[in-house]
Amino acid sequence: MNYSELVAEIKRKKSFLCVGLDTDLNKIPNSLLSLSDPVFEFNKHIIEATLPHTVAYKLNFAFYEARGPQGLVSMERTMQFLNNRAFTIADAKRGDIGNTATMYAQSVFDYYKFNAITLSPYMGVDTVEPFLKYKNHWSIVLALTSNPGADDFEMLETGEGKVYERVIKKFATSQMSEQVMFVAGATRPETFATIRKHAPDHFLLVPGVGAQGGSLEEVCRYGMNSSVGLLINSSRQVIYASSGNDFAAKAGEQAQIIQKQMQQIMLDKGII
Amino acid sequence: MNYSELVAEIKRKKSFLCVGLDTDLNKIPNSLLSLSDPVFEFNKHIIEATLPHTVAYKLNFAFYEARGPQGLVSMERTMQFLNNRAFTIADAKRGDIGNTATMYAQSVFDYYKFNAITLSPYMGVDTVEPFLKYKNHWSIVLALTSNPGADDFEMLETGEGKVYERVIKKFATSQMSEQVMFVAGATRPETFATIRKHAPDHFLLVPGVGAQGGSLEEVCRYGMNSSVGLLINSSRQVIYASSGNDFAAKAGEQAQIIQKQMQQIMLDKGII
Repeated sequence: MNYSELVAEIKRKKSFLCVGLDTDLNKIPNSLLSLSDPVFEFNKHIIEATLPHTVAYKLNFAFYEARGPQGLVSMERTMQFLNNRAFTIADAKRGDIGNTATMYAQSVFDYYKFNAITLSPYMGVDTVEPFLKYKNHWSIVLALTSNPGADDFEMLETGEGKVYERVIKKFATSQMSEQVMFVAGATRPETFATIRKHAPDHFLLVPGVGAQGGSLEEVCRYGMNSSVGLLINSSRQVIYASSGNDFAAKAGEQAQIIQKQMQQIMLDKGII
Repeated sequence: MNYSELVAEIKRKKSFLCVGLDTDLNKIPNSLLSLSDPVFEFNKHIIEATLPHTVAYKLNFAFYEARGPQGLVSMERTMQFLNNRAFTIADAKRGDIGNTATMYAQSVFDYYKFNAITLSPYMGVDTVEPFLKYKNHWSIVLALTSNPGADDFEMLETGEGKVYERVIKKFATSQMSEQVMFVAGATRPETFATIRKHAPDHFLLVPGVGAQGGSLEEVCRYGMNSSVGLLINSSRQVIYASSGNDFAAKAGEQAQIIQKQMQQIMLDKGII
């Protein structure tokens, strides 16, 4: 899915919601646990209920890898079920030298068929380049994350901007806005003006709204551009809206509540 | 395996060689390809041939993940075959917020039973802490890597040292030397004096000797401490020493050549 297709899909659904499938065996309804693949069954019902209100799904690899190879089978089945009906993000935060990065790209883009992958920029530009060889696929580079540890290194001053700004500047050519997004945490909305100064056109993937305390309105005030330019992730707030047998219906309701807020913001901004 | 056990094992084998199992289906001998799990068969023979000369094995996760869930099965079988006969490193370069990091720790330490994992520090100290809760397990934090992209962010000056120095200083308390190592690339041996200034006691995992051009002697001159304090990784130079049916024997010979060099250096330094 390329830039203009993604923007069109956001306008069609009047939503820039990304649902995070951080599916934890310890948190899904007991009634699913007797099935052969409870994680896939949970995901399937969550996707069916939320798809009308959602443009993207983000699968947090750690939650699948924790169960060994069978966890990856659940991920594979989830991707097959989605079958390109939404933008898909491999939240894997990979980052390694060229020949290794090529293998990670094969895994997420060729094998599992994700549209996008999150990447850690620590080791430099050459660790991202193998992913950029896949046209119509996206590299979502960590810039300023939503956790307290963001102060440790991302926020260090380098004389020409903080480390996260140096990261954005390295990847923020207009050409790269077709294939590169940045992760920008909702817990620091005051930084969105700085991010937009360096990357006016790029999409931002924004975690931290909801459970981590970030505000949708604040993020949109400072981070939205004329193409929306935001994918706002919500994981726990949506997928664990209920721990009972109504989990899917409640997740759908929660996704719709967020979608309606997003629709109003897009109307107010004159985007739709 | 704790610090003193690792040092004892190095002295017993007179080796601080780590063999990187970057096992690529396209590079292993054709004779293995008809077997049901060629990657595991290759690893098994490589391990049998190199174990007398090797203290550690590093499995590069990308090479296993590229084949989907079945690749992880090959990894699991390799770990079961090793069965704690060497120090094992999950070269996964993970780095994510607390609840996600906890799941990655479950994957590599509980499920696959690795002794250590490589971690990207970009998102800060709180992304490493969940791994440190596992006593006698190791977090190997990226500091200064061996690729050209290390210049992009790791080498940025922050006013109180470069970014990679700030990373080392954050994790270089003497208490942490029992559970934290650093990745320091062999392609920049002149930096080892700086690294040792900040982290005199910590072990360093050193990639880049061999195929990437780094020199064993240079690394040891500046990087070795009185407990050795180094694990030198070699991947392609050892495991692909021959592409024929003698691949295991040739890998064993190559590992022994490196071990003999290491033994001489340890003798010269008075460590053994």
